[in-house]
Amino acid sequence: MEIKVLKDIFESNKERAGEIKDLLAKKKVYMIDLMSSPGSGKTTLTDRIIGELKGDYKIAVIEGDIKTTRDAEKLVKHDIPIIQIETSLFGGDCHLESSWIMKCLEQFDLDTIDLVIIENIGNLVCPAEFELGDDERIVVLSVTEGEDKPLKYPLMFNSSATMVLSKIDLLPHLDFSVDEVLENARRANPKINIFKVSARTGDGLGDLIAHLRRGIEAKIR
Amino acid sequence: MEIKVLKDIFESNKERAGEIKDLLAKKKVYMIDLMSSPGSGKTTLTDRIIGELKGDYKIAVIEGDIKTTRDAEKLVKHDIPIIQIETSLFGGDCHLESSWIMKCLEQFDLDTIDLVIIENIGNLVCPAEFELGDDERIVVLSVTEGEDKPLKYPLMFNSSATMVLSKIDLLPHLDFSVDEVLENARRANPKINIFKVSARTGDGLGDLIAHLRRGIEAKIR
Repeated sequence: MEIKVLKDIFESNKERAGEIKDLLAKKKVYMIDLMSSPGSGKTTLTDRIIGELKGDYKIAVIEGDIKTTRDAEKLVKHDIPIIQIETSLFGGDCHLESSWIMKCLEQFDLDTIDLVIIENIGNLVCPAEFELGDDERIVVLSVTEGEDKPLKYPLMFNSSATMVLSKIDLLPHLDFSVDEVLENARRANPKINIFKVSARTGDGLGDLIAHLRRGIEAKIR
Repeated sequence: MEIKVLKDIFESNKERAGEIKDLLAKKKVYMIDLMSSPGSGKTTLTDRIIGELKGDYKIAVIEGDIKTTRDAEKLVKHDIPIIQIETSLFGGDCHLESSWIMKCLEQFDLDTIDLVIIENIGNLVCPAEFELGDDERIVVLSVTEGEDKPLKYPLMFNSSATMVLSKIDLLPHLDFSVDEVLENARRANPKINIFKVSARTGDGLGDLIAHLRRGIEAKIR
């Protein structure tokens, strides 16, 4: 019985993700889903991405957290539409589901929006199991987390189109092999796009932004 | 129906955790459950704890991972009993459950063991929901993860008796306020024990080890 119920949850999530894909295709909106461990720097990266792109595109943000609205508060300065999903209000879930994303999208005026950024809950496991109907899953891995993470959390890396290796400004102070983590990421997903970025110094940010621009342009034109 | 099934899972987990508590009381074995985000340094810390305590106590380890036996391999040098639970073999679960811990404990000769260290799966969410029958939950938070984590993952910090703030050797290179994270941890759990440690340099390790010794001694004598 347990297995059956879980199967139902995943199937209804997938169905709703399909509806989101259709809606975003019709409205010409590009949507990315940022996923990572807690504290890998998703919010700082989101802040930088918005700063770089808001001159050219209309952006909206969906912030997922179990508790607190701190991440959303950090982005308020950009004066763009932000919806916070606080999952502790309905059970403390460790991931976002497509039905909640649909409810958020209904709050936005999608005719005027080009890019939706979902900042998923900090967790390398559960969010990978829930399709949200986005165009690009981006996993953020910080250099302080160890080279083995793509092997230990294979579904997350295998289901992401892109990996951002973050906090590269800390490399001089760590015993961390960039070569090894890239090899492990490509073992989990041979086609994964990789960007090495420091959101703090801006190092490597240009390549990531250029990549995002290509995705957005291809969808909205 | 979904809610009922989840309730059943939690209740049977709790029941089995109670049986583990009874077994460990009878056998005079102290058990700790190490939990954290991916990459916070749990395995390096486990390595150091074993190194410091194995002269005085018989230790066994239960390693939880979704995929790979890498963490267990790092500890093999200590020549102590280690059991690896690889959850991808049965569904890729993001946490450990008490029934699996019981199966592992049945493999150990508990009459000769003083301390069992569980290294839980890297995840700040789901593991907090599953009691394992241990004596002490220890949450490891690295200074690279940000000061806000105790507020964003309140159940993890509220249900842990002890917090280890790890990787403190990196503090000079980070914009991280130790005062703020300690305040947030105490807001989530006013009674939490806090130890600031660098497993790499050994800084602060002595206090943590002394604390663990007190717990072990009180249980096994």
